[in-house]
Amino acid sequence: MASFFLSYDQIDDLAAGCSLLGSGGGGDTHAFSLVLRSLLARGRRVSVVDPDELDPEALIVNVGFVGAPVTLQEKLIAEIEIVSAVEAMRRRLGRPIDALMASEIGGGNGLAPFIAGALLNLPVVDADGMGRAFPLSDHVAYSIYGHSALPTVVASEHGEVAIIEAGTNRQVERLLRALSVAMGSKCFSADYPLRGADVRKCAVPRTVSLALSIGAAVRDARVHYGDPLNALRRLLHDGRGLAVSLLFEGTVVDCQHDVRAGFGVGRILLAQPGCDRVEVAIDFQNEFLIARREGAPIATTPDIISVTDAETFRAISADAVRYGQRVKVIAIAAPLLMCTDLALSVVGPRAFGFDVDYRSIALTSEQPVETSRCAPGTATVSK
Amino acid sequence: MASFFLSYDQIDDLAAGCSLLGSGGGGDTHAFSLVLRSLLARGRRVSVVDPDELDPEALIVNVGFVGAPVTLQEKLIAEIEIVSAVEAMRRRLGRPIDALMASEIGGGNGLAPFIAGALLNLPVVDADGMGRAFPLSDHVAYSIYGHSALPTVVASEHGEVAIIEAGTNRQVERLLRALSVAMGSKCFSADYPLRGADVRKCAVPRTVSLALSIGAAVRDARVHYGDPLNALRRLLHDGRGLAVSLLFEGTVVDCQHDVRAGFGVGRILLAQPGCDRVEVAIDFQNEFLIARREGAPIATTPDIISVTDAETFRAISADAVRYGQRVKVIAIAAPLLMCTDLALSVVGPRAFGFDVDYRSIALTSEQPVETSRCAPGTATVSK
Repeated sequence: MASFFLSYDQIDDLAAGCSLLGSGGGGDTHAFSLVLRSLLARGRRVSVVDPDELDPEALIVNVGFVGAPVTLQEKLIAEIEIVSAVEAMRRRLGRPIDALMASEIGGGNGLAPFIAGALLNLPVVDADGMGRAFPLSDHVAYSIYGHSALPTVVASEHGEVAIIEAGTNRQVERLLRALSVAMGSKCFSADYPLRGADVRKCAVPRTVSLALSIGAAVRDARVHYGDPLNALRRLLHDGRGLAVSLLFEGTVVDCQHDVRAGFGVGRILLAQPGCDRVEVAIDFQNEFLIARREGAPIATTPDIISVTDAETFRAISADAVRYGQRVKVIAIAAPLLMCTDLALSVVGPRAFGFDVDYRSIALTSEQPVETSRCAPGTATVSK
Repeated sequence: MASFFLSYDQIDDLAAGCSLLGSGGGGDTHAFSLVLRSLLARGRRVSVVDPDELDPEALIVNVGFVGAPVTLQEKLIAEIEIVSAVEAMRRRLGRPIDALMASEIGGGNGLAPFIAGALLNLPVVDADGMGRAFPLSDHVAYSIYGHSALPTVVASEHGEVAIIEAGTNRQVERLLRALSVAMGSKCFSADYPLRGADVRKCAVPRTVSLALSIGAAVRDARVHYGDPLNALRRLLHDGRGLAVSLLFEGTVVDCQHDVRAGFGVGRILLAQPGCDRVEVAIDFQNEFLIARREGAPIATTPDIISVTDAETFRAISADAVRYGQRVKVIAIAAPLLMCTDLALSVVGPRAFGFDVDYRSIALTSEQPVETSRCAPGTATVSK
């Protein structure tokens, strides 16, 4: 797809697509949408550039929000934190930045480069670092395939700017998180400066247009009383060869949510409607990472696991899942770049402590949704 | 005093003097002494330059250890953290650094610029930022008198380097502390780049030679069976016009030590020997900040409060004070630079939450040590 300008009317589609690709994380899109809408309404423009159109020597910088998504329920993304981060990166590199890119397309961070691009008059590359969202900054494909996060710049709305100059990508992630907490768990980062040629090799391509298409397809299906899941399947499977699977349709019967070391960690349990025997359990660390049915894995990271509202098909973020919600749990196959042995060593289930091998949902024949009749007499809820 | 090279034999005197000026903090001098000794024994040299000999346009950088002093009981200061920090500062400023200076002369940090200077072949200015030790990096006189901490560089022994580029001095302090924790509570900082002319105006002058003289005077008195306190009085009061006061001589009957927000916080209680009625209480936050007798303040920050071993006159750091120790508590008047109204608003007792005005010990006539007979029948230990 050639370059195009993001229109005001596309913001909702982009946000809906990013939500669905977020695997339950990446931050709520609401605060990001509000700021982006206000910028485009004031006449700012931001273009989307296909990776193939990038000059091989162009300088592309990753941007994203770092912190606790809950802070965005109280405060909007501030212009100063975005402008300070990108400007400090430009000064540090001593040359103009040619385009911005999302570190993660999933959740609100998929919209982050558009806010930065609109403010700084820079285009956004139609690609991202993960094809979804992941908990750590070094879960980006560029890190997996050998690129350095350095220098990493982080800026706050309070006028603070720090640059991490040396360290491994994992060390950078730890320092970034510490700085984020000290800055009030709300800051903006610019990192992984890449050449255009590197972006073509190791960014997940065309995920902005993918998110826009997902948002448009789901909206279209809902407007025309169609089935959003079928629309998604047509779009992803038929159009891009990405498997989509309905893992389960049911009711949330338990949510366990804890905050550990700055991450939202927990498990949600699902049962058939009107029944309380738990059939599916989904574990998360910011993002949904593994879904198990009767104990057996039915989808794992890096495949995307999205919990959607059964009526609206809107993705529900991991920290927003509530008892009693009627949900459809879907899985979307991860892009190939995130499924190599090297990538799996960083973002596969074992990298998150699950003693399970990755098996792509593309290889799993879809189970019928109703595998068992609900037997209320024997119902149990495991805690 | 003109420039001179620090000799191997002076290290112990320097360490003893820094300990006494540390007001119970600044880190134990032991780990710093070991590293400095090993460098000088290997033929490295480090010179001490009087502030008056600095070129007004010379570039002077502050250096010091940042972290939990307890880590230095397990690990030595590493060359890499020091060299990385100073080198990153040099690169960032784009010009050679002419001399180093201690952010705080008190405790191990008084020796820190000598280790850096020996490694990097840079002289050390005979001055420091506090004339003692204080809990926060922005308690230096340069900050009080309007100089910026920026850029602040911090480096770890694990190869991490971060530069804080923007923020107020208090914000820099908060980011510095967060980075220090993420780096394992052991890292080295280079900050407050100053011109020679600035050092003359707002550094506490000649504190290196002061520490050396204190160490030598106390050692000399002990070797010749003299009274170290009298030697200290002669040196400081008669030679420099600095009041020295013996606040109390007695026994430690209670130590309350807590760690809050990365600081060692607590109180020690003292009684007459063989008696358990508490007469003196000393509060600390890393450093001893206020001493009270029967509730009435007898010395407060910024005056230096040192708890010394009653036999050896060696200063005991706040975290090393133990039940049953026989101690002499002395106070040394703070340098004038730290006693102005502006300075007191930053490092006076109220800045640390004590509802007490600063009254210099120079204005307090020294109390006789034995004010009351111990009356065991009415003894109480307040907890």
